Amino acid sequence: MSNDAKTVIVFGADGYLGWPTCMHLSAAGHRVIAADSLIRRKWDKECGTSSLIPIYSMATRVATWKQVTGKVIIWRKLDLLDYEALCELIKEFRPDAVVHFAEQRSAPFSMIDVEHARMTQVNNVVGTLNLLFALRDYAPDCHLIKLGTMGEYGTPNIDIEEGFITIEYKGRVDRLPYPKQPGSFYHLSKVHDSHNIHFACKVWKLRSTDLNQGVVYGCTTDEMQLSPKLATRFDYDTIWGTVLNRFCVQAACGQPLTVYGKGGQTRGFLDIRDTVNCIRLTLENPPARGEYRVFNQFTEQFSVKQLAEMVKEARAAHGLKTEIIHAPNPRVEEEEHYYNAVHTNLLELGLKPHYLSNTLIESVISTVEKWRHKVDLRLLEEPDVDWRTGGNEKWRQRSSYKLEPLTLKKAGVRM
Amino acid sequence: MSNDAKTVIVFGADGYLGWPTCMHLSAAGHRVIAADSLIRRKWDKECGTSSLIPIYSMATRVATWKQVTGKVIIWRKLDLLDYEALCELIKEFRPDAVVHFAEQRSAPFSMIDVEHARMTQVNNVVGTLNLLFALRDYAPDCHLIKLGTMGEYGTPNIDIEEGFITIEYKGRVDRLPYPKQPGSFYHLSKVHDSHNIHFACKVWKLRSTDLNQGVVYGCTTDEMQLSPKLATRFDYDTIWGTVLNRFCVQAACGQPLTVYGKGGQTRGFLDIRDTVNCIRLTLENPPARGEYRVFNQFTEQFSVKQLAEMVKEARAAHGLKTEIIHAPNPRVEEEEHYYNAVHTNLLELGLKPHYLSNTLIESVISTVEKWRHKVDLRLLEEPDVDWRTGGNEKWRQRSSYKLEPLTLKKAGVRM
Repeated sequence: MSNDAKTVIVFGADGYLGWPTCMHLSAAGHRVIAADSLIRRKWDKECGTSSLIPIYSMATRVATWKQVTGKVIIWRKLDLLDYEALCELIKEFRPDAVVHFAEQRSAPFSMIDVEHARMTQVNNVVGTLNLLFALRDYAPDCHLIKLGTMGEYGTPNIDIEEGFITIEYKGRVDRLPYPKQPGSFYHLSKVHDSHNIHFACKVWKLRSTDLNQGVVYGCTTDEMQLSPKLATRFDYDTIWGTVLNRFCVQAACGQPLTVYGKGGQTRGFLDIRDTVNCIRLTLENPPARGEYRVFNQFTEQFSVKQLAEMVKEARAAHGLKTEIIHAPNPRVEEEEHYYNAVHTNLLELGLKPHYLSNTLIESVISTVEKWRHKVDLRLLEEPDVDWRTGGNEKWRQRSSYKLEPLTLKKAGVRM
Repeated sequence: MSNDAKTVIVFGADGYLGWPTCMHLSAAGHRVIAADSLIRRKWDKECGTSSLIPIYSMATRVATWKQVTGKVIIWRKLDLLDYEALCELIKEFRPDAVVHFAEQRSAPFSMIDVEHARMTQVNNVVGTLNLLFALRDYAPDCHLIKLGTMGEYGTPNIDIEEGFITIEYKGRVDRLPYPKQPGSFYHLSKVHDSHNIHFACKVWKLRSTDLNQGVVYGCTTDEMQLSPKLATRFDYDTIWGTVLNRFCVQAACGQPLTVYGKGGQTRGFLDIRDTVNCIRLTLENPPARGEYRVFNQFTEQFSVKQLAEMVKEARAAHGLKTEIIHAPNPRVEEEEHYYNAVHTNLLELGLKPHYLSNTLIESVISTVEKWRHKVDLRLLEEPDVDWRTGGNEKWRQRSSYKLEPLTLKKAGVRM
């Protein structure tokens, strides 16, 4: 390791972005500890969903990584809700930084019913609180890199700044946390986290970067291309799949692209290769002790309708016809609105964006086509969770008894 | 009951403000169901604290209330974390409104250690989530009256509005949730609740009033004066006691008044008689379906130093000398700052404030003097919880095993 190499623990290392981040940081010369409770794989069983691209166990992944690069990623099964185990891990490695992906990250999942809403907020808020206390007591100099979401801001009618906004009001002025209007119990949990982390930085002089990430697309990074055993998960269902990835799967299967409502919903987007670069740039440029900073982590804004049109055009270049249909919107959200979000902090640290192109879309579709035989067409169909009424009949029938209980040791919480 | 009489469930009916609210609403002709888990009395045991003024069981209180007024308050032991029991209660009474006091409400308690922080946020956030889902499914027209705190806003350098602020920014304008800067894990839990409730009003068309209450003082209301058995709790220790009540006890015991730090910390305050009137006015003037409104519930602003001076003057009028001392501040907060908070919504509904006077201070002190022999002087001494380091040695020795576990039935959370 070079002098600039950091010891970093990645929590949520088994996820769509966690695993590519582990490899990217390891490739850059950092000492990486990959930690995960593996609960995401259990949630797949509960939801009847699965990664379209086959994924291997964490043990196989780190062994493969060592074979192909000679580099070591240390793997630890660990649940952030298990405070004692978390403290032991922090004491063992005294990390320079921790990257915290380890949250329930699906908005529809959080809207199924009261149990999924509660579980999402308890899991996310308590996991982050545990991490804050463990850092205070055992690694106060450590840099907490926390994954938030652009969805924390909602769709205000003024420009979205990076975490804070300078407000002039009745002849006075202050720089205040940007007002939040999250759109699901999942997005709310991220807002709760942001407030908790900001407070901990203030009272305990911790240091943190809150990455308000846009919607990620793509299925590969430089590191993943070294072996099929290094693949990360790729979700296309209505619970876990993000919009552009879903459109690519629909296109690959010759299905119509389903746009929710009018499709004017505009969001920030980024390529998965930019995600891992953003994390690395953040890690290598830590804030001062006591500083809580927010980066808006995305590279381009698109409306859902624009994305559908781009997928349609990419297919048309190969003479393929793609239909776009508008389905009733299961979410409660503005379908036509102003949206202009600042995202200069990461560019200033040196991010070189991979902008969305027809080539990228084609490359995702061609990867997906290899696994087209595995697509469960029912999972591409209409969503089975509505923001107003929760999970549909399918969910009401199987609901609670299948929900994997959280482990919340000595938290003063009992069943 | 008159045509305007409401059926209202008061959650947290055993607390300092919950019980006086039950009586005041009953006296005004409403049908009141008093619900509480009684956990606050257990937390007293954990903390080694107790109400200075003796309090009776809920059964004795409601029986006494019936004897002296002929009016019925229905008493139910119920934990908001028990979702099934909560739904049964809502189905049984189909209330016009619910008043939600049922939260862990001490900032120092939430700052003791990781367990108290987690417990505070889980208890408060999950209790409120349960209530939102129960109302959605069984009483969607019900008015949720939720107790928040002025502490959600922190001390911004611009005027504090009631929940929302119209921001002009870069040539555009929007009315957005007021930015929050809460100062403890307890205050943070109230901010989390506010975001969750606002969202539920938006997606499910619930109706709610979030009462951002100031610091309450006083020990009696009109209804309490009917019998000593109707007394509400009166806390004076550093965990549960609020500042003016503590000063009155210190004065009654001939102890110096302890001001934390410089004492320039300015907050909104109100008389306990105004609290019960505010709740009644809110109940009798509900918002429209889908509306989430915020009232700042206080009547006057004071700095801690000003309050100490007022207590000193009230005593001097009787020829008594009172010392004011400045102690190290256990909290992380601004000790000199701008503070100007709007509070017109409740005045417009007809609130007639009881402003703080020497007479009121003298009356609280003379009530306290009756129970002076019961004061545990150790509880008036220096605080045993510091924002930076948590609970002191006393807490570290007895910590977790004494923490009453929460009941979180079928929440997908296990020990």
